[in-house]
Amino acid sequence: MSQPDSIPNVLAERYATPAMRALWSGEGKVRLERDYWIAVLKGQRDLGIPVPDGVIEAYEKVKDQVNLNAIMERERVTRHDVKARIEEFCDLAGHEHIHKGMTSRDLTENVEQLQTFRALLEVRKKSIAVLAGLARRAQQTRDIPFTARTHNVAAQVSTLGKRLAMFGEELLLGVQALESLIQSYPARGLKGAVGTRLDQITLFNGDVSKARALEDRVLHHLGIHAALDCVGQVYPRSLDMQVVSTLVHVASGPGSFAKTLRLMAGHELASEGFAKGQVGSSAMPHKMNSRSCERINGFHVILKGYLAMAAGLAGDQWNEGDVSCSVVRRVMLPDAFLAMDGLLETTLTVLNQMEVFEAVVEQELMRYLPFLLTTTVMMEAVKAGAGREAAHEAIKIHAVQVARDMRTGKVAQNDLFARLAADERLGLKAEAFEALIAQGRANAGDAAEQVDHFAKRVSELTAAHPDAAEYQPGSIL
Amino acid sequence: MSQPDSIPNVLAERYATPAMRALWSGEGKVRLERDYWIAVLKGQRDLGIPVPDGVIEAYEKVKDQVNLNAIMERERVTRHDVKARIEEFCDLAGHEHIHKGMTSRDLTENVEQLQTFRALLEVRKKSIAVLAGLARRAQQTRDIPFTARTHNVAAQVSTLGKRLAMFGEELLLGVQALESLIQSYPARGLKGAVGTRLDQITLFNGDVSKARALEDRVLHHLGIHAALDCVGQVYPRSLDMQVVSTLVHVASGPGSFAKTLRLMAGHELASEGFAKGQVGSSAMPHKMNSRSCERINGFHVILKGYLAMAAGLAGDQWNEGDVSCSVVRRVMLPDAFLAMDGLLETTLTVLNQMEVFEAVVEQELMRYLPFLLTTTVMMEAVKAGAGREAAHEAIKIHAVQVARDMRTGKVAQNDLFARLAADERLGLKAEAFEALIAQGRANAGDAAEQVDHFAKRVSELTAAHPDAAEYQPGSIL
Amino acid sequence: MSQPDSIPNVLAERYATPAMRALWSGEGKVRLERDYWIAVLKGQRDLGIPVPDGVIEAYEKVKDQVNLNAIMERERVTRHDVKARIEEFCDLAGHEHIHKGMTSRDLTENVEQLQTFRALLEVRKKSIAVLAGLARRAQQTRDIPFTARTHNVAAQVSTLGKRLAMFGEELLLGVQALESLIQSYPARGLKGAVGTRLDQITLFNGDVSKARALEDRVLHHLGIHAALDCVGQVYPRSLDMQVVSTLVHVASGPGSFAKTLRLMAGHELASEGFAKGQVGSSAMPHKMNSRSCERINGFHVILKGYLAMAAGLAGDQWNEGDVSCSVVRRVMLPDAFLAMDGLLETTLTVLNQMEVFEAVVEQELMRYLPFLLTTTVMMEAVKAGAGREAAHEAIKIHAVQVARDMRTGKVAQNDLFARLAADERLGLKAEAFEALIAQGRANAGDAAEQVDHFAKRVSELTAAHPDAAEYQPGSIL
Amino acid sequence: MSQPDSIPNVLAERYATPAMRALWSGEGKVRLERDYWIAVLKGQRDLGIPVPDGVIEAYEKVKDQVNLNAIMERERVTRHDVKARIEEFCDLAGHEHIHKGMTSRDLTENVEQLQTFRALLEVRKKSIAVLAGLARRAQQTRDIPFTARTHNVAAQVSTLGKRLAMFGEELLLGVQALESLIQSYPARGLKGAVGTRLDQITLFNGDVSKARALEDRVLHHLGIHAALDCVGQVYPRSLDMQVVSTLVHVASGPGSFAKTLRLMAGHELASEGFAKGQVGSSAMPHKMNSRSCERINGFHVILKGYLAMAAGLAGDQWNEGDVSCSVVRRVMLPDAFLAMDGLLETTLTVLNQMEVFEAVVEQELMRYLPFLLTTTVMMEAVKAGAGREAAHEAIKIHAVQVARDMRTGKVAQNDLFARLAADERLGLKAEAFEALIAQGRANAGDAAEQVDHFAKRVSELTAAHPDAAEYQPGSIL
Repeated sequence: MSQPDSIPNVLAERYATPAMRALWSGEGKVRLERDYWIAVLKGQRDLGIPVPDGVIEAYEKVKDQVNLNAIMERERVTRHDVKARIEEFCDLAGHEHIHKGMTSRDLTENVEQLQTFRALLEVRKKSIAVLAGLARRAQQTRDIPFTARTHNVAAQVSTLGKRLAMFGEELLLGVQALESLIQSYPARGLKGAVGTRLDQITLFNGDVSKARALEDRVLHHLGIHAALDCVGQVYPRSLDMQVVSTLVHVASGPGSFAKTLRLMAGHELASEGFAKGQVGSSAMPHKMNSRSCERINGFHVILKGYLAMAAGLAGDQWNEGDVSCSVVRRVMLPDAFLAMDGLLETTLTVLNQMEVFEAVVEQELMRYLPFLLTTTVMMEAVKAGAGREAAHEAIKIHAVQVARDMRTGKVAQNDLFARLAADERLGLKAEAFEALIAQGRANAGDAAEQVDHFAKRVSELTAAHPDAAEYQPGSIL
Repeated sequence: MSQPDSIPNVLAERYATPAMRALWSGEGKVRLERDYWIAVLKGQRDLGIPVPDGVIEAYEKVKDQVNLNAIMERERVTRHDVKARIEEFCDLAGHEHIHKGMTSRDLTENVEQLQTFRALLEVRKKSIAVLAGLARRAQQTRDIPFTARTHNVAAQVSTLGKRLAMFGEELLLGVQALESLIQSYPARGLKGAVGTRLDQITLFNGDVSKARALEDRVLHHLGIHAALDCVGQVYPRSLDMQVVSTLVHVASGPGSFAKTLRLMAGHELASEGFAKGQVGSSAMPHKMNSRSCERINGFHVILKGYLAMAAGLAGDQWNEGDVSCSVVRRVMLPDAFLAMDGLLETTLTVLNQMEVFEAVVEQELMRYLPFLLTTTVMMEAVKAGAGREAAHEAIKIHAVQVARDMRTGKVAQNDLFARLAADERLGLKAEAFEALIAQGRANAGDAAEQVDHFAKRVSELTAAHPDAAEYQPGSIL
Repeated sequence: MSQPDSIPNVLAERYATPAMRALWSGEGKVRLERDYWIAVLKGQRDLGIPVPDGVIEAYEKVKDQVNLNAIMERERVTRHDVKARIEEFCDLAGHEHIHKGMTSRDLTENVEQLQTFRALLEVRKKSIAVLAGLARRAQQTRDIPFTARTHNVAAQVSTLGKRLAMFGEELLLGVQALESLIQSYPARGLKGAVGTRLDQITLFNGDVSKARALEDRVLHHLGIHAALDCVGQVYPRSLDMQVVSTLVHVASGPGSFAKTLRLMAGHELASEGFAKGQVGSSAMPHKMNSRSCERINGFHVILKGYLAMAAGLAGDQWNEGDVSCSVVRRVMLPDAFLAMDGLLETTLTVLNQMEVFEAVVEQELMRYLPFLLTTTVMMEAVKAGAGREAAHEAIKIHAVQVARDMRTGKVAQNDLFARLAADERLGLKAEAFEALIAQGRANAGDAAEQVDHFAKRVSELTAAHPDAAEYQPGSIL
Repeated sequence: MSQPDSIPNVLAERYATPAMRALWSGEGKVRLERDYWIAVLKGQRDLGIPVPDGVIEAYEKVKDQVNLNAIMERERVTRHDVKARIEEFCDLAGHEHIHKGMTSRDLTENVEQLQTFRALLEVRKKSIAVLAGLARRAQQTRDIPFTARTHNVAAQVSTLGKRLAMFGEELLLGVQALESLIQSYPARGLKGAVGTRLDQITLFNGDVSKARALEDRVLHHLGIHAALDCVGQVYPRSLDMQVVSTLVHVASGPGSFAKTLRLMAGHELASEGFAKGQVGSSAMPHKMNSRSCERINGFHVILKGYLAMAAGLAGDQWNEGDVSCSVVRRVMLPDAFLAMDGLLETTLTVLNQMEVFEAVVEQELMRYLPFLLTTTVMMEAVKAGAGREAAHEAIKIHAVQVARDMRTGKVAQNDLFARLAADERLGLKAEAFEALIAQGRANAGDAAEQVDHFAKRVSELTAAHPDAAEYQPGSIL
């Protein structure tokens, strides 16, 4: 890595947190592998394979002496990465007892699955933190009347809190899929070169039960709940696809949230905020760019690319497996999790810093509310004695004219209700319209209850995962 | 559809079954919609909305009179597909009572989810049928010694049954994800234009509990277990992505199986078989092409394309939603399920017709077995008194030479064991090698037990889904 | 196709034009195939293969009698689609002379390439029509001062015409790539089962030159300029990927345009317009939804999915080729072009109907212009004698305060210049600010010249393709 | 980068060459940026902007003092990467003259395009080297009779050289698309924040021609032939997609070649070879795994993932652009080129080291040749007086029986011709069959001429790019 023009992993360097980096770094992986080898060796010893005294201790003593350059030097000679790491560890320990009865994939499959599994736990933690942030923000804005939009055009009244809870509910679905994956995620286990457990069975002189017992111990060491039984050299790569597609799923709630916040910023309804001390550009101090939300959307595009890679491997196993997937997984697995980590950190930061400009929210509502209430006006006019057809026609003509006048600059404000009050066909007075406006602002159905419902579900999750609830993002670029 | 140069949906026409087509056809959808409207109308009536006598009956009487051309004519006028279908149904019934308090999406979202949900059930049925077929085939070949390959090169002994069970276990993982999705799949429900339930609440004079009760009845009609609470105009499109990614997942076991069967056919170890009466080409009557397996792999590529479409929509919601997803979902949802249906039908057919050529399996084993047993030879030689290093060197030199002689045509058969028997450094007699061969053929670890374990898990599924176990594919092209 | 629950190709039925449908319909393909067979037969006759008198005439007489159902019946028996079509044609003609020395792929590869090639020409025509529409619109709005946005936030002055020309220039890049593809697109030709031309050479008694001459005649019939020389059973599938990726490329200019028009509609700066007679919903007559622009973006997502399918086939050739690509190409090729056709038709319609609300454009400009001119104010203040640092500080404080006051509703209009005029530190009078505004409105650099430059390039294209320039879209749903 | 658990870019570290790394490393990019700033500054000076003496020299003196850590420290404060790099460069030089009249994108867009452009040139060089390797190998094996396969099953005779040339021709198509891209690739140029050139025009006191002249000089510095005229803040991202899709295209010939070589290795027809000193595993010294070919296929999957990212950005421009693409391009652009570099290096290595086992090729041919010649046998039998129907029936029955006997182990060799010679219905003697075999081996049509044709086209390319022809890959892992 000290070679000229070395290139760091940009996702790790710029966006991911130390915790996620530690799972995927070269050093981190070597540490996991060595722990794994020692766990296998202990299991073998406990099940009767002779291991001289002091050997395990010797491995444990050196296991943290990780020198990636030395390992790479070995690999350039052997052209075999696992062999290089075995030799390095054994030379450090002064023994050759690890990796007994194991094939390379007995090591790498399980350790990579362990990285994946722990990374999923990390994603769960931060996703719940995002949910907590959304719930907090939604509760704060639970009752702020708000112009909901469809087709990017004013459609009906809602509340700001409900909009936020809506994105939260999308994330809840993702977290539910994630939880299901965590519970069912199976490890490949110690199955040998083609999955028959031959070498471990041979090591135990044909005792299949001991080979299976060894595997159980190793799985216990990994902390993974489930195991595959009938595999080849590798675990099915469709499992990787399920992992990455679940990441894309989890990222979708934040993705929709970020996209909508970018739209809202364009209308000055809200802003993702500034970090303390941050300013807009010197030329345009007012300019509050949605850089972080744009970045969230960018991370989502990245994740979808890794999903394409994962899908490219799924269902393409030749015989008992080969390594055409190897280089893909070296890139896709770490990078998908590093991008996901950046996405969640960025989302948490936005949730901490975002600002809502309530006055602009109110201005927007007043601009559109009369349009949104035309149906109500008609019902009131009919109640007051107007003919249905006449009322409908009058309202339609005025509404279209007001829209046109606003678009042509003839009027600056929406004066539809003033015009309707002046139209005798409707028979409604100005006070009636004032009442309608007051009532219309509150016409958000059960939006507020939906916010409460969402917050309640989130509080159940945070109760089960208190560390997630308290998690605070690091400083982002 | 009678217009010149009309183009049928090729997946529906050539590959999908009537059951799957009925779910996604224009007629099928209109029927589902009409049932849904009637269910809403009944619910409203039961909850106190006045519906004159005879109205519901009038709708029910005409609900099966589906004329897609008439509806399309209406749409060309209104430029609004839902409005066209409302008008058609109402004109047929002679009433205007359906769709009360509903927005278009209150109809289309739920009906499309119903199509999706029922299609998932259909996929589950056929996936279990594929599992049953794989289990049956694996049990038949449970103990046939077999050259397992990694990197497409002979690696170790296994059994043919284990290879099949291995692909079965990949499919089991997919079916597990599918079951989890079916159990958690949530309907959008009757939430109105922006998700606040405003219009139904208004219809019930502000009684939120009645609006919620109506939704419960409608969900009960759909038969979907879960419901979303806080949505906008649409349900989150990441849910569609979960659906399609689960299809890709389920397709992966069959995909790996088909790819490997194509490889095996190239070695004449097996063939996907012929349908009764089918022959190879007249020019080449011996030629048994893996057309069906190739098609399975093709379907998988198609599904991955629809996954890209689904991913393209996920996390891209603007505000409370819009219809930029509409045309995508019109294509992606039906076509993904139609392709999946074709994939499963084709896989079932292959499982019914495939042939294994055991003699060629045996020939291949004999070609490679001596190589695969070199480690055992060495252990035996050491037991018999040979030095480890000398034995290792002797074996390596002979093995490399035999491989070279076979590749250069010097020998036609693998005579490694004859050469080793003649090498005094090893001190092993010809009989010893014969014993090794006999034992080596059985050197498949616990492959057979893995087959049993797989078959047992499948039998649990087929016990729970007896219709799936008995399902037989239709005739394929 | 008259079977119950038949499903039409939704892209063909709802969105594509008759011209594009005719290229991809079953009837259309059979017609192209028959023409192709006849062309081969004529070539063979001219090069010396005996063909009895009247045979070619007999084929020509029946070539338009296309009965897809009859062909499908044959395929269900033979399980071979090409054989079914040969038999049908021969039975109709009463002769068996076509397909001589040909393998299936000698037919299907070339005919599918012909469909592709002609569809590319159709795409070129409509793309140039879109360019013409963009140029026309850009010239109409060439000088309208406009608030350009980055990060969806006001950034600098531009002109509306320049914005449109910008999307036009993106499309120009795509059209350039398309033209390059059309010029270089190579046909597979008549190469036989594995690409060695064996069967035609045999037919000509070993005369290679005649086999090549026959191919030349066939290519001339196709109208495709280039040919492959060394192929296997199939042409390289990466060529399909180049085709589909070029479609995605061409779709990108319209995609960006549609996305931005959706944003503009949200601000009421513009609208995609209504078709004659179309109104908003009865409940909300003012509501002008960007349905067509949303659909354009949806088509783009669809195309990207077909690109994933095409990429899934590229670089995956086994030996001389197989048919794992077959089902994929049956879906992907027609559907990509049908979607593209719909995208271009929709774009043309939007360009015809879109409206710009100049008054709102002006209001927006006045809201942001003072912010956009702060740099200029500072330079003027310095010229007028103010200290640079003091001026910068004063401007910054006022700008931030005005932005805050607008967001909190304290002021309704941007009164920054009034505040700056009142600040003695700057030493600038109200008239100076009026001049700045007047000048600032024109501060669009060479935007107008860019529009002219774009229009000139488009006019060169339309001069070369006059039919494209005059093309008018059909009516869309 | 010296932080704990730093993660290198795995593609750069393990697979890419120093030349490609230098283009995409942090240091490399900073060097390109500084050269670019200096070029702009010189251009401004030459066109009349006052630049004090010594300033440019001061920048040039320090331009190679690149300290990424220092820059990153600045970015953590400013949260603006370009600002950080400006400050670093200016502080080193002791002046503040660079970046005058420039916005960030005037720097980054052009420099990233320069990286892209130079990387495309590098890809062209190595692609031509791959073509040269394929041509060399194809000429060496031009006349080796060979069993061509379709559906992975023996189909017709070809030559080995033709198979290699076939993959070469696929690559030629890719290189042709690459060349077209290189010739047309346009730079964004110096257009300012929203593309109006405002700031440079202002800098030159309103003189548009000077602003354009400056841009011309800068483009000349870049060495890029074409330029965009009407852009926003950014160049259209569909251009990135064209770049990445072209990489996938170029990778497809190598992809198909590698996949087929993996199949051939499974039949021991060929091997990708070993590096000097490399051996198979100690347990299985004979085992020659297709690791490099598998890796080539893996790189292709990776590239398709980056294509999905690139497609995700195409046609998604909001207004004049934003930075949602930023994080995606930071990952996708370098990593796509680094993967491509690894793919081409690996392919070159395989071409250098691959071995063909001609004896096995011959054995395979003898196994299938009688089947492949049945049509010829029939023609000869008819010539010799046999009835057509009787001959056809006899041949078919024998052929199917031989195929069955081989698959059931009754015969070890294909004895079809012996059986046919013994069948009186055909009236052909043993010698006749010997002649048929001899002739049949040569039945490869114009395969050899196709090889020559391919080699000729490659030689034209290598003549134009002599450095490419001589390029030798580095040592791979």
